[in-house]
Amino acid sequence: MFMRVLLCAALAAVTLPAQPAANPANTLISPEVGADRKVTFRLYAPKAAEVSVRGEWMEANLSLTKAENGVWSATTGPVEPGVYSYAFTVDGVSAPDPRQGFIKSGNRGPQSAIEIPGEAADFMMIKDAPHGAVSEHWYLSKAVNRMRRVHVYTPPAYDAAKKTRYPVLYLLHGSGDTDREWSDFGRANIILDTLINSGKAKPMIVVMTDGHVADINDPAQRSKNTALYGEDLTGSVMPLVEARYRIDARRERRALAGLSMGGGQTLNVGLKNLDKFSQLGVFSMGVAAAAQETFLKDHAAVLDDAGATNKKLKLFWIACGDKDFLFASATNLHQLLEKKGITHKWTVSSGGHTWINWRLYLRDFAPLLF
Amino acid sequence: MFMRVLLCAALAAVTLPAQPAANPANTLISPEVGADRKVTFRLYAPKAAEVSVRGEWMEANLSLTKAENGVWSATTGPVEPGVYSYAFTVDGVSAPDPRQGFIKSGNRGPQSAIEIPGEAADFMMIKDAPHGAVSEHWYLSKAVNRMRRVHVYTPPAYDAAKKTRYPVLYLLHGSGDTDREWSDFGRANIILDTLINSGKAKPMIVVMTDGHVADINDPAQRSKNTALYGEDLTGSVMPLVEARYRIDARRERRALAGLSMGGGQTLNVGLKNLDKFSQLGVFSMGVAAAAQETFLKDHAAVLDDAGATNKKLKLFWIACGDKDFLFASATNLHQLLEKKGITHKWTVSSGGHTWINWRLYLRDFAPLLF
Repeated sequence: MFMRVLLCAALAAVTLPAQPAANPANTLISPEVGADRKVTFRLYAPKAAEVSVRGEWMEANLSLTKAENGVWSATTGPVEPGVYSYAFTVDGVSAPDPRQGFIKSGNRGPQSAIEIPGEAADFMMIKDAPHGAVSEHWYLSKAVNRMRRVHVYTPPAYDAAKKTRYPVLYLLHGSGDTDREWSDFGRANIILDTLINSGKAKPMIVVMTDGHVADINDPAQRSKNTALYGEDLTGSVMPLVEARYRIDARRERRALAGLSMGGGQTLNVGLKNLDKFSQLGVFSMGVAAAAQETFLKDHAAVLDDAGATNKKLKLFWIACGDKDFLFASATNLHQLLEKKGITHKWTVSSGGHTWINWRLYLRDFAPLLF
Repeated sequence: MFMRVLLCAALAAVTLPAQPAANPANTLISPEVGADRKVTFRLYAPKAAEVSVRGEWMEANLSLTKAENGVWSATTGPVEPGVYSYAFTVDGVSAPDPRQGFIKSGNRGPQSAIEIPGEAADFMMIKDAPHGAVSEHWYLSKAVNRMRRVHVYTPPAYDAAKKTRYPVLYLLHGSGDTDREWSDFGRANIILDTLINSGKAKPMIVVMTDGHVADINDPAQRSKNTALYGEDLTGSVMPLVEARYRIDARRERRALAGLSMGGGQTLNVGLKNLDKFSQLGVFSMGVAAAAQETFLKDHAAVLDDAGATNKKLKLFWIACGDKDFLFASATNLHQLLEKKGITHKWTVSSGGHTWINWRLYLRDFAPLLF
C-alpha cells in the first residue's frame, strides 16, 4: 500500500524525499512475453516455501525457482496465441500476479490474465477498428428480490443507426464466472466487432447475464438456480433490455447460448421457452447418463414432438472438446437428440473445458445466427 | 479448477458420481458480516506458515489463527458501514479471498472487496431506484498509438431524454487503480444516481478515463505520464465521448476531478486547459514543498493572473484527510493558492489516503457542479 502511494506521487510529478533502495517487489516484470511466445513468470516471495504457476493452457502446475533476492521465476512455452487465465500457488494458496492488472474476475475470486499475440488469436485482439460498447445495468430481479447486474453489448453502428432494431443473443457464462466474463475475459465484444466488421455475422445486441441467481453459499438454494435463472431472464432481464435497447423482440430474432453451467441453463430454460427463443447454443455441456431420465421427462413435450420442435428451432448448436470432462455428457445429449429426431448441429473440437474453446465456439456460432 | 467444474455440473442439475467428503476449501464462508457489523475472515491454507488480513479500514494487518482442518480465521470490528478493499497475506504474498467474487481490480493486481451495510453508507448502496448505466469503450489513443479503454456513466433519464445534452465530469482514478475503479469499486455511478434521484446534483455524464497512459513498467516513460494523459484526454477521449454521447461541450459545463495521481493530473492538465474546464476537483493531492518551484513556474500564467483565473474557474475544490500522507502537500497547495489570490474551496476531512474518503468527496463535490 505504501509503495503504491509513493508511486502515485511520483506519477503526479510531485517530488518526495529520497526513497529506499529499489525492492524487487516493486521493479520486477511479470509476466514477460517474448517474441518467441515464451512466457516468464516472476513473483517476489522471500518467505514462501513453495511457489508454482498454472496457466489455463497447462495440464499441471509449473514450479518456480527461488533466487537469492527472493524472486521466484519460471519460463514456459512457446504458448499458442490467445488470452488465458493464470495464477500463482503460494504455499497452497492461489494468488494473482501482483505486478499487472489484466485479470479474470471470477465468481469465486480473481485470477490474472495474459494475452499472447499472434495471427491465430487475431479475431479476439483489441485493435483500431469500429468498436461497439459494453454497458452495465443494475436491476431488481423479481425472481429473488435482489439487485443484480447485466452487461449489454451494442454493435459498432448502434449509436448512428438511430432507428434500426437488432436481433439479440443472450449469452451465458459458466459457474466460475460473473456476468463480466464474456466481455472482459472472453472478449465476446471484440469477437463480435471482428465478425460484424468483416460481414461474417449480422449486427446484433448481446446480453450477458449473471447466471448465479441463487445464493452461492446456500446448497439448498443452489439446486434451484436453473429455475430461478429462467424466472430472472424472462421476468426481469428481457423486459429491462427490451425497454432500454432497440431490440427486435420477435422470437425469430432471439437466441440463447451458454457455456458449461450456462449451457445447462440454455438447454433447460431454452427448451422450456421455445415460444421466446428460436436459436440455441450449448457449449461444453450435455446430459450425464445418470441425469438422462430427468432430462427426458422434463422436456418430453418438446423432445417427443420432433416435427413441431424442428419447425420452431431454427438452430440448435452443440459443441464440446474431445478432452472436456463433460465430453461423454455432451455426446450423450447429441445421441438423445438424434434418437428423438431433433435437428441439431453437433461439433466436436479438440481441447478441454476452457475459455480457449468458448471463444472459438462464439466465433463459429455467431455467424450462423439470424 | 476441478472443483469449480464439479460445481458447474451440479448447478446445471447434471448428476455426477458421488464426490469425496466435503473439503473446507469448497464449503467455508468468507467473509461473514454479522448484524453487529463484525467481520469474520476465513481462508483454507493447510500448508501456510503465516496468514494475516488487511482491510482498507485497518491500520495494520490482523493475524489469523489456524484450526486443525487447515482453516485460518479471525474476527474484527464492528466495521463502519461502507465498501472496502481487503486482502490476505499468505507467507508474505498478497492473496484475494478465494470464496467470493466482489473485488477491486487494481492496476497492479486485484484485491477482494467487502460491503458493510448501514445508514452512513446508504448513498453508495445499490438499491431499487432509477439507475444510470456505465459503458466501456475502446479507442485508439493518439498520444501513445495504443488501444485504451474508458468508462462512461450516463444518468438515469439519459435514454428517455432523447434530445437533452448533459454537462460532463471527467473523473480520474489513483495510481493503484484502473478506469474501472471509480464505478466498480468507488460506486461513482451509484453515488451519482442517489444524488440525481434526490435532486441534490444535476444530471450529468461522468467520463472515467484510464490514467496510466505511459507504460507502467518503463520508468523513463512514466515521468511523462501526466503530459501524455493531457494529450490523451483532450486529443482522443474528449472527441470520442463528445461524438458518442449527448454532451454539452461548452467549458461552463465541463469539469475535471481526480484522486491522488488523478488529483495531480487534474491540477496539471486542468490549470493548463482553463479554456476547456471551468471546474476542478483535487482529492488527496497537492504540491510537495520540494516540487513547489516547478509548480509555480509551470502554471505561472494562471497563478500570476488571479483576476483572469478567478473569472474562468467557477469552482476549484480541494479536499484531503488529516491523516493522509499527502496532507502536508495538500495544505501547501491551499496556502500557495491563497497567497496567489486564487479562489478555491479547501476542505479538511478526517481519515487518510483511502477510497473511504474519495467516495465522500465525490458525494460532496458533485452537488456543487454545473
